[in-house]
Amino acid sequence: MPDNHRILLAARPTGIPGSEHFRADVEPVRPPGVGEILVATRYISIDPAMRSWIGAGPSYVRQVGIGEPMRAGGIGRVVESKAAGFQPGDWVQGRTGWQSHPTLKGDQTQKLDLSVGTVEDWAGPLGTSALTAYFGLRDVGALKPGETVLVSGAAGGVGQIAAQIAGIEACRVIGVAGGAEKCRYLTDTLKLDAVIDYKAEPDIAAAIRRACPDGVDVYFDNVGGQILDAALLSLRMGARVVSCGRISQTGAAEPYGVKNLGALGGKRVRMEGFLVFDYHDRYPEARAYLAHHLRAGRLRQRLHVVEGLDQAPAALAMLFHGGNTGKLVVGV
Amino acid sequence: MPDNHRILLAARPTGIPGSEHFRADVEPVRPPGVGEILVATRYISIDPAMRSWIGAGPSYVRQVGIGEPMRAGGIGRVVESKAAGFQPGDWVQGRTGWQSHPTLKGDQTQKLDLSVGTVEDWAGPLGTSALTAYFGLRDVGALKPGETVLVSGAAGGVGQIAAQIAGIEACRVIGVAGGAEKCRYLTDTLKLDAVIDYKAEPDIAAAIRRACPDGVDVYFDNVGGQILDAALLSLRMGARVVSCGRISQTGAAEPYGVKNLGALGGKRVRMEGFLVFDYHDRYPEARAYLAHHLRAGRLRQRLHVVEGLDQAPAALAMLFHGGNTGKLVVGV
Repeated sequence: MPDNHRILLAARPTGIPGSEHFRADVEPVRPPGVGEILVATRYISIDPAMRSWIGAGPSYVRQVGIGEPMRAGGIGRVVESKAAGFQPGDWVQGRTGWQSHPTLKGDQTQKLDLSVGTVEDWAGPLGTSALTAYFGLRDVGALKPGETVLVSGAAGGVGQIAAQIAGIEACRVIGVAGGAEKCRYLTDTLKLDAVIDYKAEPDIAAAIRRACPDGVDVYFDNVGGQILDAALLSLRMGARVVSCGRISQTGAAEPYGVKNLGALGGKRVRMEGFLVFDYHDRYPEARAYLAHHLRAGRLRQRLHVVEGLDQAPAALAMLFHGGNTGKLVVGV
Repeated sequence: MPDNHRILLAARPTGIPGSEHFRADVEPVRPPGVGEILVATRYISIDPAMRSWIGAGPSYVRQVGIGEPMRAGGIGRVVESKAAGFQPGDWVQGRTGWQSHPTLKGDQTQKLDLSVGTVEDWAGPLGTSALTAYFGLRDVGALKPGETVLVSGAAGGVGQIAAQIAGIEACRVIGVAGGAEKCRYLTDTLKLDAVIDYKAEPDIAAAIRRACPDGVDVYFDNVGGQILDAALLSLRMGARVVSCGRISQTGAAEPYGVKNLGALGGKRVRMEGFLVFDYHDRYPEARAYLAHHLRAGRLRQRLHVVEGLDQAPAALAMLFHGGNTGKLVVGV
């Protein structure tokens, strides 16, 4: 039986988390009790929300304790099962955390249906980031065919899917991303209608106006801060702002002050946050949609794999520095 | 026949509008054509939205042109009628503008039902500010009995009604207003549960935390800026922010930057603006509600009357300096 390699939270970050906030640890695997399964982790999802689980500030879930394994969703293969419905060799997703061989509760773990997509599809375009894009854009954003949709963080895990769903739904899609390579990927591979490279644009608001001359109906906001402020200036009457993330504010010495909220009153704009977990009962609907368009070739997602559990802290830091193109995962 | 005294827009303000942006004018009254009525104005409503109609910035309606009479809603009495359904002596409300004897289209003017409320009631707790409070709090705010409602600009035309509706709906109501006299009025006369005097509080966020220890479910925002930023820190899971106005930002040299929008994502908050005119079809519902509670003594509103049409520019400036307690009108 292998050991369980773990990465534990060692200190609470105040800015962008890095290796100094974690430490590696090895323990014997814990044999599964009744209702439990032992899993060999393959992919661990690296998400912006993780920052809020480990900082000192308020979070929508319990903070990860110092000395506890870092919390994370992951995909792996069942090694041993004492839970009904699971056999060794089954692929599953669940709360692996940053652990190579976690023992998980069967009732908190889902078997992957590999007739719907590959293991990599389940880590990407069928995973939680994709569900976030689906419910954010459709339920919170309430997008309608023919509308103009602006997506920031468009090259990221959620953004890529949100941008493609907007295209599938007959919307005009403009992505905002940082750097020429990401922008090329969005236009050439994901076929967005237009892309704004915020690192190359001295005036984001002007760039948005040029790309969306008739204004923006839905702004899917993954970044907050200055790009949000700029986007507010181009909103149309009745526009919706989907407050999905504000990754630009992680590690910011001083939070950016958003000046253009006047658009809300004058243009009856709705700006709304959400938690994907609230839609849990409707995950099957979202997965049916995502799998359908995945099979039809209308949805794709680059997995950005950082290999090695010990690289998880570096991968998390990379996320906040914008180093990934596509859904970021750690390969174990 | 009297002359029509008018106040015309003379220049576009960049900050708070004042006398220097208007000029007085007298013209002969225009006899009503078919479908029109000649009205003697009694009360003219002075509202924060007026600023957006005369500035250089974008507005949700056409800007008032230089040399045109200032646009405004008002109440008056029919002097002469060539419109079906109107008789001399009828009390009406409509788009009087800043004019003593406007000629109005009958189909854009409503007769007041004085069995429902007095002329002063129609200028106050049955008027457009009250409708704004009703739809903002109930439809946009979606308030539920037992919730905690924070209202800024609570002593103003919309705020007073919003605060009282929240109380009628079995919510705990905390008002924010500037100055001891306004605060006394809110607690002693309007019976709010608690009041925060923002001019006397060095730390608004702390004052809101003390007044709302379990957090805020609905923040009815009439002011924007710093008080909005502070309120965002006390929002509960699933809270709603009704973006009704941002009067604190009128005349601000530099728009205030709102730093605490992170609450939206982490607490699935909805922040939404609206235009009361969108609810036009439901005005009868709102008026039935307001009239019912007015008769029952559960709703009251102080009219703050500035007498004299020539005082309209000064009244508008007073509004932005927070000089009024209650619904501000010009008496003609």
